[in-house]
Amino acid sequence: MLKLVECVPNFSEGRNKEVIEKIIDEVRKHRDVKLLDYSSDPDHNRTDVTFVGEPEAVKKAALDLAVKCVELIDMNKHKGEHPRMGAIDVVPFIPISGVTMEDCVKLAEEFAEEFSKKTNVPCYLYEEAARREDRRNLANVRRGEFEGLKKEIGKNPDKVPDYGPNRIHPTAGATAVGARFFLIAFNVNLGTDNIDIARKIAKAVRFSSGGYRYVKAMGFEIKERGIVQVSMNLVNYRGTPVFRVFETIKNEAERYGIPVIGSEIIGLIPLEAIVQVADHYLRLEKFDVDQVLEKKILDTISESEK
Amino acid sequence: MLKLVECVPNFSEGRNKEVIEKIIDEVRKHRDVKLLDYSSDPDHNRTDVTFVGEPEAVKKAALDLAVKCVELIDMNKHKGEHPRMGAIDVVPFIPISGVTMEDCVKLAEEFAEEFSKKTNVPCYLYEEAARREDRRNLANVRRGEFEGLKKEIGKNPDKVPDYGPNRIHPTAGATAVGARFFLIAFNVNLGTDNIDIARKIAKAVRFSSGGYRYVKAMGFEIKERGIVQVSMNLVNYRGTPVFRVFETIKNEAERYGIPVIGSEIIGLIPLEAIVQVADHYLRLEKFDVDQVLEKKILDTISESEK
Repeated sequence: MLKLVECVPNFSEGRNKEVIEKIIDEVRKHRDVKLLDYSSDPDHNRTDVTFVGEPEAVKKAALDLAVKCVELIDMNKHKGEHPRMGAIDVVPFIPISGVTMEDCVKLAEEFAEEFSKKTNVPCYLYEEAARREDRRNLANVRRGEFEGLKKEIGKNPDKVPDYGPNRIHPTAGATAVGARFFLIAFNVNLGTDNIDIARKIAKAVRFSSGGYRYVKAMGFEIKERGIVQVSMNLVNYRGTPVFRVFETIKNEAERYGIPVIGSEIIGLIPLEAIVQVADHYLRLEKFDVDQVLEKKILDTISESEK
Repeated sequence: MLKLVECVPNFSEGRNKEVIEKIIDEVRKHRDVKLLDYSSDPDHNRTDVTFVGEPEAVKKAALDLAVKCVELIDMNKHKGEHPRMGAIDVVPFIPISGVTMEDCVKLAEEFAEEFSKKTNVPCYLYEEAARREDRRNLANVRRGEFEGLKKEIGKNPDKVPDYGPNRIHPTAGATAVGARFFLIAFNVNLGTDNIDIARKIAKAVRFSSGGYRYVKAMGFEIKERGIVQVSMNLVNYRGTPVFRVFETIKNEAERYGIPVIGSEIIGLIPLEAIVQVADHYLRLEKFDVDQVLEKKILDTISESEK
């Protein structure tokens, strides 16, 4: 079966097109990974890259991209609105299919080891790859940013990196390397203009107030449509699947006599998460993602490339 | 967007492995189509092949395969249980994504024209590509088989082919070329051992007795589980989607106080049909198949191959 990992590195250049293209070229030259998207934000002065492929191929492409960032970006000259601590700022590995979170944690560790050996950039493991609870949250890891870390690292024992030297790289700073689940942006629209109801339902489903473990949720007004919305991030659809959250929202809305009038998936969603929904609704017995024709085609392509 | 057509040719050799492999090699040599499957039945003395790709590439691979069948198979020596009229017996084109039925009908016509010009094998268009109502049904087209057609063609005006000469090919017979929808084999299991209920529900949903246009259905016992099953072929999921049939079965079962305990999809199902189910259940607004990550990867691969 096809093993598929997504990598979404962020690097600290969002203005100089020539530099950005040179860095992206490092992914493009790997014919065995597929560059799905990249987008630069000049205000943030930062570029997000998305590519996918088999684990080993993704790691190699990420390494080449990261080394090129170290070569071309000088953090002493970098300014942007988004918090950052390194030329190659974050490198998360995300399991898509045929791959466990443990596989992605291992990939993150291997990446951090090889990258720090090659470049002397210190690496911090975050989210599912974190080795200390206080490094789970990326915001914690990045607190103080490049300028702050430069002063603290080597002195503060809490800032000892997981890989690489216990000192900042003079131009490339430090890098956060992690493993996390695919994030699904899922919104449910309610047939009312009463924002309180959206807020109450958001509270019912989100982790922070007692709801599902892998749900972040807020209530919003959609003024132009005269309705309200429960806007969510599902941070681990294997743990908390889309259909279960949807059922709970329908049930809570019913308690107020309010209909669910629609929902939205913003951006991409893995096939597995769509199949979970169909599987639940149709009460499927023994259905496998590999029965989806397009998945079978992908598997065939990946076999023939070996 | 990626345009994807499936082709499922059947040829009249299911015993001689050397011949079968030579014929399949004609598909394998086309790097721009993906051979998903092929299986030979020695009793039928027949092989089914499944491959997919962009329309033009699929047509070319089908042509090479068909020409090789004409070269290697002699219908005068062919015996098997399955009805057949030609060395390359049927060539159906099936829209999968980004392609309409009209596109596939055109592809069938082009195939029939080019193939009959190259080989002098007469071609009959069937199913969605049929130009006469009596050729819609493949069984009609193939009636009499190779031996019968040999006597009738050239004399019976109903047997004038749509492409090619009005005479049988001495060794390769004739070929049925068609366009049809993807067929989904879908079964729903009921929590009862009363076969009458399964039969009544099958009757309620199938076209032949007043049900949905694109549904064929029968009631079966599954003795080892002590339950019954509504077993279906959904012959056009765009016209009659899976979820609508499922809802009707649930509703009819409820009328007898019987629960739907599960369902099965046998073999492959196109992504679009799975997305239809999720779209219905989640009441999605403006969701597109291209938002499925794996679909996006396929699109990217297809772009990069151009």
